[in-house]
Amino acid sequence: MKTFLAFAIIFSVTWTTHAQTPSERSIRAVLDAQITAWNAGNIEGFMQGYWQSDSLRFASGGTVKRGWKTTLERYQKSYPNQASMGTLSFSDLEYTILTPDAALVFGRWRLQREKDAPSGLFTLTFRKFGNTWKIIHDHTSSEN
Amino acid sequence: MKTFLAFAIIFSVTWTTHAQTPSERSIRAVLDAQITAWNAGNIEGFMQGYWQSDSLRFASGGTVKRGWKTTLERYQKSYPNQASMGTLSFSDLEYTILTPDAALVFGRWRLQREKDAPSGLFTLTFRKFGNTWKIIHDHTSSEN
Repeated sequence: MKTFLAFAIIFSVTWTTHAQTPSERSIRAVLDAQITAWNAGNIEGFMQGYWQSDSLRFASGGTVKRGWKTTLERYQKSYPNQASMGTLSFSDLEYTILTPDAALVFGRWRLQREKDAPSGLFTLTFRKFGNTWKIIHDHTSSEN
Repeated sequence: MKTFLAFAIIFSVTWTTHAQTPSERSIRAVLDAQITAWNAGNIEGFMQGYWQSDSLRFASGGTVKRGWKTTLERYQKSYPNQASMGTLSFSDLEYTILTPDAALVFGRWRLQREKDAPSGLFTLTFRKFGNTWKIIHDHTSSEN
């Protein structure tokens, strides 16, 4: 009985992990790498999830930033030190795989900081370049 | 000479109109119909641009509405009369045609009202159902 339960638990965990499609798992890995980098205070590492192109778009509030470098600078300016970066988490992720090389990811972001915990929603458009998924467009909004 | 100029002007206008791809023109027509309906005070007409599905998503600030009917009700509540609806315009539209039946439209919205003029950005994901493009996901943000 114990063996059966252990097997059932392992099977259940495996099933949950494998419920995602290969595209979803690859995209999830990009997001996980972003979170790991962010929480290590590494904005350049976080930025590896974005398309390194002048055509990258990052929209927030009423402002749009264009290009990988401009987006990096926006992050560096908004989050000058690790205390301001806090601990990032994503939740409620919803994947819409549009084609084998284009996808939409919608979800919720949250920064746990010492004095506050800003949060909001994001819509990411991903494209696959070779074997790598990258964010080509990010629209982020904040809780009022 | 006059004939030539007239021809040049017509050609130029035609060229500008035709610079868009067929997909872009079809999507632009959906957006134009939305604006026409909105500016006639017709929210249900405006909502024809959206996918009539419980899976429609509308994200704004930190809030997400799900489903066509819920999104309609959100608009009806936020804009109870034509004065609050004002005059809607879209600008700076950028189309990313991902596949023959999936596209991203990024742009700026503005409501001209008697006492204010709120504005912001939107990211729309369109899918083509038969011959008709519909918004399946809308992420909107406002100028602070």
